[in-house]
Amino acid sequence: MELWFTEQQTPDLGFTCKITKTIYTAKTQYQDLAILETKQFGRMLVLDGAVQTTIADEFCYHELISHVPLFTHPNPKKVAVIGGGDGGVIREILKHDEVEKAYLIEIDREVIEASKKYLPEISCALDDERAEVVITDGIKFVSENKNMFDVIIVDSTDPVGPAVGLFQDSFYKAVFECLKEDGLFVAQTESPFYDQDLIKNVFHAVKSIFPITRLYLGFIPTYPSGLWSFTLGSKKYDPLEVDISKIKRIDTKYYNPELHKALFALPTFVQEIIK
Amino acid sequence: MELWFTEQQTPDLGFTCKITKTIYTAKTQYQDLAILETKQFGRMLVLDGAVQTTIADEFCYHELISHVPLFTHPNPKKVAVIGGGDGGVIREILKHDEVEKAYLIEIDREVIEASKKYLPEISCALDDERAEVVITDGIKFVSENKNMFDVIIVDSTDPVGPAVGLFQDSFYKAVFECLKEDGLFVAQTESPFYDQDLIKNVFHAVKSIFPITRLYLGFIPTYPSGLWSFTLGSKKYDPLEVDISKIKRIDTKYYNPELHKALFALPTFVQEIIK
Repeated sequence: MELWFTEQQTPDLGFTCKITKTIYTAKTQYQDLAILETKQFGRMLVLDGAVQTTIADEFCYHELISHVPLFTHPNPKKVAVIGGGDGGVIREILKHDEVEKAYLIEIDREVIEASKKYLPEISCALDDERAEVVITDGIKFVSENKNMFDVIIVDSTDPVGPAVGLFQDSFYKAVFECLKEDGLFVAQTESPFYDQDLIKNVFHAVKSIFPITRLYLGFIPTYPSGLWSFTLGSKKYDPLEVDISKIKRIDTKYYNPELHKALFALPTFVQEIIK
Repeated sequence: MELWFTEQQTPDLGFTCKITKTIYTAKTQYQDLAILETKQFGRMLVLDGAVQTTIADEFCYHELISHVPLFTHPNPKKVAVIGGGDGGVIREILKHDEVEKAYLIEIDREVIEASKKYLPEISCALDDERAEVVITDGIKFVSENKNMFDVIIVDSTDPVGPAVGLFQDSFYKAVFECLKEDGLFVAQTESPFYDQDLIKNVFHAVKSIFPITRLYLGFIPTYPSGLWSFTLGSKKYDPLEVDISKIKRIDTKYYNPELHKALFALPTFVQEIIK
């Protein structure tokens, strides 16, 4: 028997891969969760039918969303991840020695538990003494804490279901307040091929709140189109003014200092989206 | 009835999209050819089951493979395209006023004819007076012409069937001889996620022949992984030493001068491939 998992990336487009085993499935309080063993990408975390991460390409997403903001802030001591229950972003954050505490603010405890059990390569840093897991709604957490973080990373699912509120203006205002006076944040903001309205709306919302707003791009083969965007809002530090000669070398497979500014060089059609 | 076309991008991975109509199919002397009307990408050219180009994303590939070499050479007058029967690269080349003649060297006449009939947005420049179509084997053509071109663009299909010889050392040597003494060439060289051995082999082959060898990357959503590589070999001009302030603005949707050097900034795992 051949077993294939298909994500309907849009109503007219599918991404389909051969699986050798369904490792685990659950209906959590918030979403449908599955861990699949795929031939092409190794183990895969699927939430509500959408690929979240795989062993083969998780480094792309996790490094892109972590190291760009962390190497833009000159001294990130206290960092929060909103979402990101698989732990991949926490693992990358803790590669930065100056980070004293990294909070994982995840609404769905079962995502963390499944990742710890079935995706140890990704979740491995969640038990680090510098990591603190808080099971709560990210919107609530951000609203209730002021002037607390150097960097906030919004590692959300797509803007459906539990993540809808993470793409709204009021959330970015709360993020602004939750950051210290020289803080910055980054959010994953979907594909420039299929989600142009979302990118435009988020970019302008962030721009109306933060003095510095930048969009950068990366390749993630298991995400729709393979091209993914990240929106960065900053109170003080500009990622384009980082002295890349001072970036410390850390163990990475995607990010490197020479790539730091190149990620912000946008194809013309992407420039048009955020004009 | 729902009709879906699926490209098996690897034995374990499929790309599947809804089609409203099969516009045209043919078994040519060299390959199976199909023109499909897709919901997501508009019309699509498929050769031997592999997506070649679509109306929605053809600009990515055609601009990337054309404008990087043409803006690296200071005065490209005579340009050849090996393959590329759809005409998209010719269209981009002819945006450069200094080009006096652009040759399309295509082995399969039926690809050109189908593109002219069904993909006019892409093939529109093939009847330009500066374009000359030559129906012949690209390997033969390149071997028989010495010291002839400023720029050669190898717009091949995947390295199976008629295109196998376009990925061999002897072909790159012939390309070197076919170029003028300050000429340069570029070839599409597949996905850094799925074709690492090919990229490595081509890069080292080109490096053993040309004084300057560079790899650059772009996003093409309908190609496997969405991340695509291009290998550039040059006798004299280095794409990284172009004065981008002097690049003329032309009408593009992907390429822009600020992107020119950023395309060569490689993720670490890609640097490792060509080390």
